[in-house]
Amino acid sequence: MGYPAGPNSRAWGRVAMMSNDEQHRRPDARKPRGFPDRTAAVIAAERRLVDSISSVYQRWGFDALDTGPFEYVDALGKFLPDTDRPNSGVFALQDDDEQWIALRYDHTAPLARYVAENWERIPKPFRRYSAGPVWRNEKPGPFRFREFIQCDADSVGVAGPAADAEMIAIAAEAMQAAGAGQGEYVIRVNSRQILDGIMETAGVLDPAQRGTVLRALDKFDKFGVEGVTLLLGKGRKDESGDVTAGAGLAGSQIDVLVEFITSRSITRSETARKLANSVGMTRSGDSGVAELVEIDCILSALGIGDDAATFDPSIVRGLEYYTGPVFEAEFLREFRDAEGDPMRFGSVGGGGRYDGLVARFRGEPAPATGFSVGVSRLAAAMAASGEAQVEGPVLVLVLDKDQMADYSALASDLRRAGVRAEVYLGSSGMKAQVKYADRRNSPAVVIVGSNERTAGIVTIKDLKAGAAAAKGMTDNEAWRNERPGQFECPRSEMVARIKAIAGQP
Amino acid sequence: MGYPAGPNSRAWGRVAMMSNDEQHRRPDARKPRGFPDRTAAVIAAERRLVDSISSVYQRWGFDALDTGPFEYVDALGKFLPDTDRPNSGVFALQDDDEQWIALRYDHTAPLARYVAENWERIPKPFRRYSAGPVWRNEKPGPFRFREFIQCDADSVGVAGPAADAEMIAIAAEAMQAAGAGQGEYVIRVNSRQILDGIMETAGVLDPAQRGTVLRALDKFDKFGVEGVTLLLGKGRKDESGDVTAGAGLAGSQIDVLVEFITSRSITRSETARKLANSVGMTRSGDSGVAELVEIDCILSALGIGDDAATFDPSIVRGLEYYTGPVFEAEFLREFRDAEGDPMRFGSVGGGGRYDGLVARFRGEPAPATGFSVGVSRLAAAMAASGEAQVEGPVLVLVLDKDQMADYSALASDLRRAGVRAEVYLGSSGMKAQVKYADRRNSPAVVIVGSNERTAGIVTIKDLKAGAAAAKGMTDNEAWRNERPGQFECPRSEMVARIKAIAGQP
Repeated sequence: MGYPAGPNSRAWGRVAMMSNDEQHRRPDARKPRGFPDRTAAVIAAERRLVDSISSVYQRWGFDALDTGPFEYVDALGKFLPDTDRPNSGVFALQDDDEQWIALRYDHTAPLARYVAENWERIPKPFRRYSAGPVWRNEKPGPFRFREFIQCDADSVGVAGPAADAEMIAIAAEAMQAAGAGQGEYVIRVNSRQILDGIMETAGVLDPAQRGTVLRALDKFDKFGVEGVTLLLGKGRKDESGDVTAGAGLAGSQIDVLVEFITSRSITRSETARKLANSVGMTRSGDSGVAELVEIDCILSALGIGDDAATFDPSIVRGLEYYTGPVFEAEFLREFRDAEGDPMRFGSVGGGGRYDGLVARFRGEPAPATGFSVGVSRLAAAMAASGEAQVEGPVLVLVLDKDQMADYSALASDLRRAGVRAEVYLGSSGMKAQVKYADRRNSPAVVIVGSNERTAGIVTIKDLKAGAAAAKGMTDNEAWRNERPGQFECPRSEMVARIKAIAGQP
Repeated sequence: MGYPAGPNSRAWGRVAMMSNDEQHRRPDARKPRGFPDRTAAVIAAERRLVDSISSVYQRWGFDALDTGPFEYVDALGKFLPDTDRPNSGVFALQDDDEQWIALRYDHTAPLARYVAENWERIPKPFRRYSAGPVWRNEKPGPFRFREFIQCDADSVGVAGPAADAEMIAIAAEAMQAAGAGQGEYVIRVNSRQILDGIMETAGVLDPAQRGTVLRALDKFDKFGVEGVTLLLGKGRKDESGDVTAGAGLAGSQIDVLVEFITSRSITRSETARKLANSVGMTRSGDSGVAELVEIDCILSALGIGDDAATFDPSIVRGLEYYTGPVFEAEFLREFRDAEGDPMRFGSVGGGGRYDGLVARFRGEPAPATGFSVGVSRLAAAMAASGEAQVEGPVLVLVLDKDQMADYSALASDLRRAGVRAEVYLGSSGMKAQVKYADRRNSPAVVIVGSNERTAGIVTIKDLKAGAAAAKGMTDNEAWRNERPGQFECPRSEMVARIKAIAGQP
């Protein structure tokens, strides 16, 4: 149809032709790494998290906006921390007009494009939330996916620390909405301005070196004082022998920085006082500390205590676009994986001020701040630890194939009463049908053979009660005679009896 | 990091370097065609549709499964109707292991891969639903997107027409869940086997020609008898002068086919009788009609009348993988677009039997049937016609910047009571703040200046009442004095008064 074909579409054409030539060869049933198939429990956990966190954003006055999956690569920008990944960490392809497009790696870069594109038409401040997938072309691993859902809230056109305090309060509420009780989460707050101040104090002035220093400080949580000291100095070798180059600082410089990142106190006000002493003499540090003091004041007015939101000088945040207060949300509850081993969860979200992102497009400054929760890892952990169970449907067994209409009507009666129910549509006998119901985690099966039909009754087998009773029986013969959990009732009582079994009102 | 770079990543590397070199040039704030930014009303409509349709699938015993965005291109297969589109209609790129991957164009092809990959582990029949985006590299247009949400239900391992009848009943229920009342939707059912039968009767025996004939018949809804006659014969020229090649059938053959596709009667049973006469003498046709008779019987038992589900011999379905009963769901309600012009909606979903799709991988047959609703177009139409409105947040005005903690606490009181509320975080004066509230569609603003603070009261401005009252006033002076919709109350009554204005219990 006359569409210009880029290198991508030419290469695809070759693959497509090949598969036409060899179309009788069967494809392998396999899938690309890092995009796991997500089953019901994970999806239910994701949905619950997305809904509850979106409700928080909605209640705080943010409106939903979805900017779609693709952006032009120049509009997306390059702000990911792992710049040594292929394709700069994104999934990119050439559109049919030859321009390069890429799947969004977060919701913030596309928001900046949206705000710049619609600047004259949007209300300001502009408050939006977004809940949807982002894609990163990274090395996948356990609980490390190449697609994951992020739930973001952002305010654009807001300059003061009140907007940052609001984001931190929202982060705390989002953690609660995600199921974290008091003491099960903490928001750790720091400031890029304060980090600039301490780097100035330590005599780190070169912008490129500052980047290396920030990346080193960002590893404190992972490698501790010892690791960060190496990364700030000569470099660090990991267990595999790979070497990460160091920032090359002198011992006295490293001392200043390490003392700084370990200077957290129990209360926000005490930490702010200590920070004022260490960085207050620099302009950037002074301004950053003043912001933290104002943030503390608003958080206190909102009833957010020192246990829920703390000031932590070791927080850096990986993304390069932050310019002011930054923070991370940590889920402290201990999860257990499928093997029952404890999993520490760490940071599930974060955010901060990014005053330069919209200016990339517009030239003029547009101050902004935001927060993002990563939902997918958390949902996977909740599902793996058994927090999200899905109850199966009631199964209407099929004993007489010519009675499908009648079986269908029985299942329909149950559904109309709000009960999950299906008719068995496979081709197996009764025993296999009950086994199928067990595998589906069904609470009960409904059995209607010719006897029941004639008598106007149904037989109901309560699978949970049956399983519980069978456990206590050793004699197979007794089990057969007693048929635990199984009983008859008039058709007109079927719905009520099933609802009682399923625990539905 | 030593990842092999495909042609795609090399070319991206070039683009990335370019943007590094020219990083002071500002990117254009624009986005790729066919991926519109979706705002709150559209997202709300989508969410409502996805939730209500998923509930139907859930109630019928389907479990959620999401297979993720990417599949290997050979696993995805080539079943899209528009084979002349670039990249065969998909978005493809080369992964870092050099294999070609593509975004899914529907939920069915990935399901077939999943079932084949997990055959030994899944319960059979396998019943899953999926609600999420699919991507098509097509020419975008109004209400024609390159990303859209589909909600699918599928049963794998089910051979009989009872499973197809169930899908049709689910389709009817899904339409109701989407908001279609009685008479506002219809499910149109046909059978690929019957279409095979009528082609045999008409003497169309060549498989390639059968494909062309099916594509011609599929255009009946769009071009009517005249257009289809041309497409079955010598070909058809459209208004732009483009010619679609015809199937080259003789007049007598065309007569048989056209009579067939126009042979719908009011009732399913009457249509089945007529079809038995026209195609019943072929083996394929006979089997197809017998299935429709059984489907009719089950639909009747489920209380689904001839108005909700009809047999329509003109239904074909575009996708190539169907093998048995096929059907389309049509939304009959008339929508109006943003200009108030009527929009006819037509088919919003469809489905059918595809017994060969899993066998592509496994070799052995695995009968299957499914249904899919396209949610995005419908949501866009609902939003455009004003069916999905979003109420804005209550705005707490900021008159004294040093009282941010107090304003924040007021908004927090409202939110705790379930009211959407925000503090104004921009830098404008009071008049601009009220204007902002208007633009956000806020029901009310809360005003606390030094007078109110001293007196322990708040001033509330009911924006809806104010706007209504202002409409009736011509005298600007009167408006200023009366301040319609504005009143004072004690702080302790603020929440109750605001809830009354917002109509919340």
